[in-house]
Amino acid sequence: MGTNIEARLAELGITLPVPAAPAANYVPFTVAGGMIYVAGQIPVLDGEIKFTGRLGDGVSVDEGYQAARLCGLNIIAQAKAALDGDLGRIMRIAKLGGFVNCTADFNDHPKVVNGASDLMVEVFGESVGQHARFAVGAPSLPLGVTVEVDAMIEIG
Amino acid sequence: MGTNIEARLAELGITLPVPAAPAANYVPFTVAGGMIYVAGQIPVLDGEIKFTGRLGDGVSVDEGYQAARLCGLNIIAQAKAALDGDLGRIMRIAKLGGFVNCTADFNDHPKVVNGASDLMVEVFGESVGQHARFAVGAPSLPLGVTVEVDAMIEIG
Amino acid sequence: MGTNIEARLAELGITLPVPAAPAANYVPFTVAGGMIYVAGQIPVLDGEIKFTGRLGDGVSVDEGYQAARLCGLNIIAQAKAALDGDLGRIMRIAKLGGFVNCTADFNDHPKVVNGASDLMVEVFGESVGQHARFAVGAPSLPLGVTVEVDAMIEIG
Repeated sequence: MGTNIEARLAELGITLPVPAAPAANYVPFTVAGGMIYVAGQIPVLDGEIKFTGRLGDGVSVDEGYQAARLCGLNIIAQAKAALDGDLGRIMRIAKLGGFVNCTADFNDHPKVVNGASDLMVEVFGESVGQHARFAVGAPSLPLGVTVEVDAMIEIG
Repeated sequence: MGTNIEARLAELGITLPVPAAPAANYVPFTVAGGMIYVAGQIPVLDGEIKFTGRLGDGVSVDEGYQAARLCGLNIIAQAKAALDGDLGRIMRIAKLGGFVNCTADFNDHPKVVNGASDLMVEVFGESVGQHARFAVGAPSLPLGVTVEVDAMIEIG
Repeated sequence: MGTNIEARLAELGITLPVPAAPAANYVPFTVAGGMIYVAGQIPVLDGEIKFTGRLGDGVSVDEGYQAARLCGLNIIAQAKAALDGDLGRIMRIAKLGGFVNCTADFNDHPKVVNGASDLMVEVFGESVGQHARFAVGAPSLPLGVTVEVDAMIEIG
């Protein structure tokens, strides 16, 4: 199955980011009780932050969607690191938590977080990739990023 | 036990909402590792949003409480769907996550999220229904709703 | 191992707070499926709130760090209560969720939540104490506190 997911990534033309190193006394993932807990991922690629700014204040829903997709790619990259490269051990994306940097009158959080959700189904298919989630607003996020997404992933 | 919970709901005069269908590439719940992960529920009934607006800006604590209670009813409805109708398989409401749409000077988040917490204890009793939780503010929530609550529920 | 953690706390000169009692129809922790779910802890000591106010509006990053550290001490105190005093049963701090009361232009959430993260590694060491986490902004928090942190802790 690991091979299949890699083939699927190639078919989609997706290259996973290099998973970001620990930034402090926390780590990008822990594995406990058959789950991977992936720390909140931000829209960073090759060490560079790609999306900053707030929805409702100059950042479009499409940009937010792309930011969330990049968070999702980093989640998959971290999961791959947690599994020593074998993405086929993923049984279910159990839950995503999506925080959207936005103004008080912004209402389209779901459309933004869909960037990460759609990616999970593209890569893992519906039965593994569909997940529970929340999508909420935040008045600000670390380093001014547009979106932060964390994940709980069941492994076998 | 499933029967008992249904009897308790009837005794309380509670009719569960029809659980909302998936809105996108995520699902209202996943089941993994003996837990139901319920996606963030909003105060919707029969497809209609019942509570919008912000605490500290025209929405009262009591309205917020009722909004959170309706989120809680939707959580129970989703759990029932996850369990093919058998709410008696619920061992413990492990955790609720409560997001309150509010202004920067609002301080009564706990009183709002109590709407969901009180419901869990009314329906499931203290030993099953009491849960860990967080209650925090959000500058905005999807579709302008007043409260969003997600849940992790242990099943047997 | 429990003894070792107590010795480590003594060595660090740390006295755990008295864990706060349940405030409502929720509880400070639940134990389910080999995990302790610790409710969102606030910077309270002996029943008195020690840190209120917002980052970016008069509260310094160092004060925020100290607030998060006090949240972390309360998390450990709750875990100790959950384990009838035996902190040695903790296998892994799986995840912390950090909410920082802040303005829209605040960017240093990670430096604030490090107050809780550093504490976990000081007390439990890297292999047990390092954890996944998110660190996000909130426009307001219960009772006006500066930080709220919750936790998922794997036990054996």
